Amino acid sequence: MEYEVIPGGVTAAQGFLAAGVAAGIKYRSKRDMALLYSEVPAAAAGVFTTNRVKAAPVLLTMEHVAGGRARAVIVNSGNANACTGEQGMQDARKMIEETARVLGIEEKEVLVASTGVIGVPMPMERIMSGIAAAAGELSRQGADAAAEAILTTDTCPKQTAVRLNLGGRTVTVGGMAKGSGMIHPNMATMLCFITTDAAVSPDCLREMLLRATERSFNMISVDRDTSTNDMALILANGRAGNPEINAPGEGYRLLADAVAQVCVYLAREIARDGEGAGRLVEVRVINASTEKDARLAARSVVASNLVKAAVYGQDANWGRILCAAGYSGAVFDPGRVDIFLGGVQVARDGGALPFDEEAARRELETDTVRIVLDFKDGTAAATAWGCDLTHEYVNINANYRT
Amino acid sequence: MEYEVIPGGVTAAQGFLAAGVAAGIKYRSKRDMALLYSEVPAAAAGVFTTNRVKAAPVLLTMEHVAGGRARAVIVNSGNANACTGEQGMQDARKMIEETARVLGIEEKEVLVASTGVIGVPMPMERIMSGIAAAAGELSRQGADAAAEAILTTDTCPKQTAVRLNLGGRTVTVGGMAKGSGMIHPNMATMLCFITTDAAVSPDCLREMLLRATERSFNMISVDRDTSTNDMALILANGRAGNPEINAPGEGYRLLADAVAQVCVYLAREIARDGEGAGRLVEVRVINASTEKDARLAARSVVASNLVKAAVYGQDANWGRILCAAGYSGAVFDPGRVDIFLGGVQVARDGGALPFDEEAARRELETDTVRIVLDFKDGTAAATAWGCDLTHEYVNINANYRT
Repeated sequence: MEYEVIPGGVTAAQGFLAAGVAAGIKYRSKRDMALLYSEVPAAAAGVFTTNRVKAAPVLLTMEHVAGGRARAVIVNSGNANACTGEQGMQDARKMIEETARVLGIEEKEVLVASTGVIGVPMPMERIMSGIAAAAGELSRQGADAAAEAILTTDTCPKQTAVRLNLGGRTVTVGGMAKGSGMIHPNMATMLCFITTDAAVSPDCLREMLLRATERSFNMISVDRDTSTNDMALILANGRAGNPEINAPGEGYRLLADAVAQVCVYLAREIARDGEGAGRLVEVRVINASTEKDARLAARSVVASNLVKAAVYGQDANWGRILCAAGYSGAVFDPGRVDIFLGGVQVARDGGALPFDEEAARRELETDTVRIVLDFKDGTAAATAWGCDLTHEYVNINANYRT
Repeated sequence: MEYEVIPGGVTAAQGFLAAGVAAGIKYRSKRDMALLYSEVPAAAAGVFTTNRVKAAPVLLTMEHVAGGRARAVIVNSGNANACTGEQGMQDARKMIEETARVLGIEEKEVLVASTGVIGVPMPMERIMSGIAAAAGELSRQGADAAAEAILTTDTCPKQTAVRLNLGGRTVTVGGMAKGSGMIHPNMATMLCFITTDAAVSPDCLREMLLRATERSFNMISVDRDTSTNDMALILANGRAGNPEINAPGEGYRLLADAVAQVCVYLAREIARDGEGAGRLVEVRVINASTEKDARLAARSVVASNLVKAAVYGQDANWGRILCAAGYSGAVFDPGRVDIFLGGVQVARDGGALPFDEEAARRELETDTVRIVLDFKDGTAAATAWGCDLTHEYVNINANYRT
């Protein structure tokens, strides 16, 4: 096997320390601040929300990561520092200053992320104490605490790491994420932090992250809402000692695949833990004429409220699936599409097919519901992940803020 | 007052007859076939679903209406004749042939529409009997029966008519529609049929319908799913005796406004009767720099699951409103946006504002919830309509087909 999945999350790679502490932003002494630190300067890259409304930490981190270098990421949950105006910008800057000061590094080497309620000023006294506390607890064993500290209404932490051989050197890529809604109720956001000890140029790192994001975080949908705070960051500190990857080739391909594997794992876990979700829904479009068409159709099906509700109701309603592909913008011939629910074919050439309703219902009962659309039109494919639409989703989102 | 709202629906205008009968397509002898007929040839225009998956009747009606003339529309509910392949096309053609035969008009003068379950062959024997029965019942009093016969899971018929003075002649515009979901669970569709006795050229009629659709049916969202069967048709038979409108001018403007008024009324009623809806939600964006920006933002807010669930939960969650405008693609400055819930301002310049939570909650309790976003950026405005996201929506869509 090319990649070995290992424990350790964001501290699995050499030279990375992490911590997660309770600063009192969230209620009941839950962990709510995480700090991630590389012992040496690292290449850095990020992808950010396309929402026109961007939280203060997003704006500052976009600026800092543009230089391609970073050493630390300070994160808080419980408050998104979004729609907070000039005060919000000042608060995010203070978080960077204080993190740089306690770690003895430059401010431009610090990135910042926040998630939580929108439009509420940051409790800066608690946050400043939290930064100091987190710095004091940085360790090689800090991944679990950090993965917990970034959560909002997620029901479980999400982390993974993989190890691979790169030109005779062992290289590790690890990551953690939070999600639960693409945006949380007012609580925002998808956040993802990836670390690797590979040596790689900032340009290559950015390309790898962009490409991995396209196949992972951009292919999940919980409720189609895009948050003000979404970001994915990657730091690469070179500690593995491999020859620096700075151009396409075998090493580039191997590392890019490892980064994608970590992102896809985390994206799937975010979809599985979607608000109120009972099941992970995986939609795969195969034999499309282009990857773009496959991606558009897969995302549209997984995001359809009607498909999501049908999965919840264990209703093998293939008409909704074809209909959602139809309005996705993807180019395909509706009269050629075959549709499968797990092992059961439910439509052929875009039309009805007698099938075993009970067997189809059982496919919709599994933890991971697999829907396949075969366009019979080419060789491109794409996969998207989401979850069912449940009464619990309505409960969470009707009653969150108050 | 320029326009007088009158009863009579699609038969309010001179020279139009209608009927609605129970052909046995739906269970329990509910009305399920409607026929609309103009005593004289009429100008005709239509707008159709943008879904790549188009039902057979949509494809045939697009072809027939392209000529700009029509005299009859045959409609059935209970079966959408979608994803039914070549058989579906043959069945839709038979409906046209039979309607032309019993009415003694040309096939190209007949339009056809269907709504109901997807992927199930049409019960053609019942449909053929239904066409004959409907032709026998055509009358000037048939609007109510027709408006009832086109419904699927709608809870009430939707029809209206307005009267205006056009160059000394009394002109009437009437319409009926069904909706309930933008697509129904497998039951498809928004359908709208408008009649007027104005004399107007097919080209002008098409422009008026397109422009009215942009401001009405394209501004409502129940669940963001676009059906395989959506269509809006308009027939204008000239019986009012006004000089034919064939170019922009005063007459054009008056008639176009009347058509838009009918469409906006029907669109609002469709949104109000959205699946599981408890409330009509009206989102108005004002002082945007362009109408396009206003439309994008208003539609995005009204379609957001998070906003819809917040309305259901009576949660004055303005962060979700601003966030949904932010990812709409509209160009605006988030730092300038003011947000109002009814009479209560809940955000100023994109940020928090102390407000009376109880008063805001009361605004979310009303039958029609009004949300206003002031972009303070120009003079353009747009309005969108939708409904809250309720437990009942999940119930209906989890359990519809089976």
